[in-house]
Amino acid sequence: MLWDILFILCSVILSVYCEFSKVHISPKSGSYVSITTKTNISSYVWPYPIKMTCTDNAYYILRNEMHFALMSPGEFPNSHPILSNAFNEYYHIIHDLTKQIPDSFIQKSKFEVELGFIQLNVTLDIDDASLTFDTKEDYNLSVGYPASTLMATNVYGALRGIETFSQLILEYSDNQLYVHECDVNDAPYFKHRGILYDTSRHFLPVPLLKTHLDVMAWNKFNIFHWHIVDMQAFPYVSDMFPDMSAKGAYSSRHTYSKSDVQEVITHANMHGIRVMVEFDTPGHTDSWGKGQPGLLTPCYTDDKPDGTYGPINAISDVTWPFLTGLFKEIVSEFKYQYIHLGGDEVNFDCWKSNPYIQQWMKESNYTDYAMFEQFYMNKLIELVEQLGKSYVVWQEVFDNGNKIKQDTIIHVWKDSHNWEEEMNNVTAAGYHALLSSCWYINLISHTPDYETYFRCDPEKFGGTNLQEILVLGGEATIWAELVDGTNSLSRVWPRASPIAERLWTGSSTIDISNDELYDRLHKHRCRLLNRGIPAEPLGPGYCTYPWE
Amino acid sequence: MLWDILFILCSVILSVYCEFSKVHISPKSGSYVSITTKTNISSYVWPYPIKMTCTDNAYYILRNEMHFALMSPGEFPNSHPILSNAFNEYYHIIHDLTKQIPDSFIQKSKFEVELGFIQLNVTLDIDDASLTFDTKEDYNLSVGYPASTLMATNVYGALRGIETFSQLILEYSDNQLYVHECDVNDAPYFKHRGILYDTSRHFLPVPLLKTHLDVMAWNKFNIFHWHIVDMQAFPYVSDMFPDMSAKGAYSSRHTYSKSDVQEVITHANMHGIRVMVEFDTPGHTDSWGKGQPGLLTPCYTDDKPDGTYGPINAISDVTWPFLTGLFKEIVSEFKYQYIHLGGDEVNFDCWKSNPYIQQWMKESNYTDYAMFEQFYMNKLIELVEQLGKSYVVWQEVFDNGNKIKQDTIIHVWKDSHNWEEEMNNVTAAGYHALLSSCWYINLISHTPDYETYFRCDPEKFGGTNLQEILVLGGEATIWAELVDGTNSLSRVWPRASPIAERLWTGSSTIDISNDELYDRLHKHRCRLLNRGIPAEPLGPGYCTYPWE
Repeated sequence: MLWDILFILCSVILSVYCEFSKVHISPKSGSYVSITTKTNISSYVWPYPIKMTCTDNAYYILRNEMHFALMSPGEFPNSHPILSNAFNEYYHIIHDLTKQIPDSFIQKSKFEVELGFIQLNVTLDIDDASLTFDTKEDYNLSVGYPASTLMATNVYGALRGIETFSQLILEYSDNQLYVHECDVNDAPYFKHRGILYDTSRHFLPVPLLKTHLDVMAWNKFNIFHWHIVDMQAFPYVSDMFPDMSAKGAYSSRHTYSKSDVQEVITHANMHGIRVMVEFDTPGHTDSWGKGQPGLLTPCYTDDKPDGTYGPINAISDVTWPFLTGLFKEIVSEFKYQYIHLGGDEVNFDCWKSNPYIQQWMKESNYTDYAMFEQFYMNKLIELVEQLGKSYVVWQEVFDNGNKIKQDTIIHVWKDSHNWEEEMNNVTAAGYHALLSSCWYINLISHTPDYETYFRCDPEKFGGTNLQEILVLGGEATIWAELVDGTNSLSRVWPRASPIAERLWTGSSTIDISNDELYDRLHKHRCRLLNRGIPAEPLGPGYCTYPWE
Repeated sequence: MLWDILFILCSVILSVYCEFSKVHISPKSGSYVSITTKTNISSYVWPYPIKMTCTDNAYYILRNEMHFALMSPGEFPNSHPILSNAFNEYYHIIHDLTKQIPDSFIQKSKFEVELGFIQLNVTLDIDDASLTFDTKEDYNLSVGYPASTLMATNVYGALRGIETFSQLILEYSDNQLYVHECDVNDAPYFKHRGILYDTSRHFLPVPLLKTHLDVMAWNKFNIFHWHIVDMQAFPYVSDMFPDMSAKGAYSSRHTYSKSDVQEVITHANMHGIRVMVEFDTPGHTDSWGKGQPGLLTPCYTDDKPDGTYGPINAISDVTWPFLTGLFKEIVSEFKYQYIHLGGDEVNFDCWKSNPYIQQWMKESNYTDYAMFEQFYMNKLIELVEQLGKSYVVWQEVFDNGNKIKQDTIIHVWKDSHNWEEEMNNVTAAGYHALLSSCWYINLISHTPDYETYFRCDPEKFGGTNLQEILVLGGEATIWAELVDGTNSLSRVWPRASPIAERLWTGSSTIDISNDELYDRLHKHRCRLLNRGIPAEPLGPGYCTYPWE
């Protein structure tokens, strides 16, 4: 990547200049204006940082005079694409800020006038912009006078810190914003903090995905789990197998070209988000069969093929050359270390009906079709491993007793009321685990559900400390049976936000009262409206401006 | 009203001129192009007409050459505001049409070329544009060669017919639309076909309400039940009692001024929709108390006022002068014959705790607080009656054994699984009834709910024919605890559409198969997308163009 230049130490300084010529209390030019406020500013930060201390002091920024400048010491480059992009985005976010919550929430007391200006210095330890599972996202932010400082290990931690900085700025009047004096020491609790988007049941256009990625970054999510194909449609355009989308997508208007995919990945990476793609097999593959004859298992009724098809046929001559070619192409496009291989909800009936598979089972001394699935999954994992990838699979691959490789990550999704047992079993067997069971945000309800999402703790399953260490994080899922471009943003936001906090913050905020939770999440939701996202309400109430 | 000119017979002619200079099969200028198509055009019409017969013939309209002209015989006015407005709106709707459903749905066969042009003649029996409960909406539409004709009793029937006409037009190519040859004889089954919008739990901006009114008209709804205030907020701006919104609304940005209200009513009426406003009392009035001291009942704990308030205090000196003044103002603004007086969910505890009410009960020989509610409701009904209005109340007013006037309409809303008993009781007592119990579309689910809404028949409660006649219709409700401008359109549409068909069509389509229902409703949903409404999906699938 362009910006992937090797510097061990890079210091980048961001200055937010503020000029006060138009301020109504007429301070001297270049002067520093502070106010004392009773605004509980820490309640505005979402997800809650590991450690945050704020005072009642705040400093003015004039909206129309504000500008950003990126500076660096002589020996370092004076720009960094990811930070430049962030500065530009946050300039607009901050500039366009309007009151996010009702006036009555902001209790002002006496004003004080001081002299100075506001500056945020960003310092990085390393200039490595590669984005792996282990990429750090820690930052220390100190907002104060005469300068605010942001220190981070790398550019991705800086992104997280700038987001927090932006959340410490509120609107005071048409001309004026104010930034609050705070110290923040922050780092993510879980490394894998994701949302699964399903683009098969309904196609989600690229601009919409990019908007979701923006909001994910504002919530400090870092994994875009792209469930790109499924039984209903195959929107992924393959160079090697163009028929897959030509015949398997809903239409040519409902596909992701190579450049679409790269646009999404680039946008994600620019915001510190990894794209973990899923090609779910051997089940959920009906749409695959349209473009690749011989891939799916022909089902039999009364000893004859009945014209229907089942999961991928692990012993067809077509299957392994096809999968090898397809995954080679996938791996060349999706650079993130992990790929999701699916493996959920495989129905054995069709395999059982097929005489060729029956025969093969007999010859192989296989007695159980779960073993046939295991045969398939292990072969697939081996293939993907040879292509240099790590992999995640749905819990059934573990549940079915498959002897899977020890470095496989098991994604627990079943049983929203009793996922603890599964997490216990998976980690007791020494596997790394991801949790989604309690975070199926597609399962909408007519009563508020954010509390349930907020209070689900992936580590709280009664395991040992060692088992807890194997929990890598989790994902919200927005399966798309009833979701497309018309309602996707309002359905995901702010309902995924409680999950963002649990994954970023760990359990330290899990016990806050419902009132405090509502207050904080409501403010966060109003901020999303402020930033142009139609995030739906949490309950009766209002933000400062009605959404039109 | 401007257009309320008394003509017993008015004939208005709308011409859709089509010129063919750019048609790719190069017919002669002024020629008439017909195609034979296997498109099942009747499946595109929603709600389904009482009677519709279509052939496989269709006629081209060139999108860019199409224009509307309104003509009338010499003695009649050559324009009518409501029709002119409709012609303008439908010009854009039809002009902007794009393919609503996948190409494969349209099975074209041979082409034939004929000569001619398309013309729609609209004929009205009367030119009375008043909009009462009894206003007819019938129409007869014949789409064919050399002219299409639309006959209606009045302008509102014409609106319904033009909507149907617009649904018989599909896109063929970039340049070309085609209109299908059909005969339609249509009239609504139920007279009252409404949606309740709650603008208290969340404020809904006027432009959003107007968009909803547009979509309501496309679905042939005719009642906008405006649940304008409730316990959470009082957004209605009263001239006589300005403190009601100044103190009771969320903020000054969350209010409906006099001109806002008139803008909504005018927009509704222009689309054949009545605005039935609801001021729900005596419960659900917490927000009322902020602007009118002495109105609500002070609740007592341990023989002392505890600072909380209950329902409106029917025996306070403040109450009746206030209600008289308020309702006078309401009646002067909301011209529709009916007003909804609420009366639901009155909690008696606060009344019971209040020593003054206890004393009054004793002196009046009242033993039951339902009688106290009855005292209030009867006094309110009398007040509203004196102001010349008819009224609707929620079912509790009937359930509590109130002796209410016989011309009261009872609105049944409770118990989605056993509303039949209530409908039976209400109509057996000789009252007119409206049904909402099975149509609470705010009660969202993660499984499709449109079938349930579709198959609910307000007349199917085991009553006599006479009882069935007392059923006037029903309403979908979109209570706004979790709904505001961010998600209102996608949540209401197309989920209210099955209800629209049941109310317009009666039970004649109630038994169609789930497949046919899905096919028709999906097409209707895609049409809504086509017209710019983010109507949410019914299940996995797609419309021609993804919603961006």
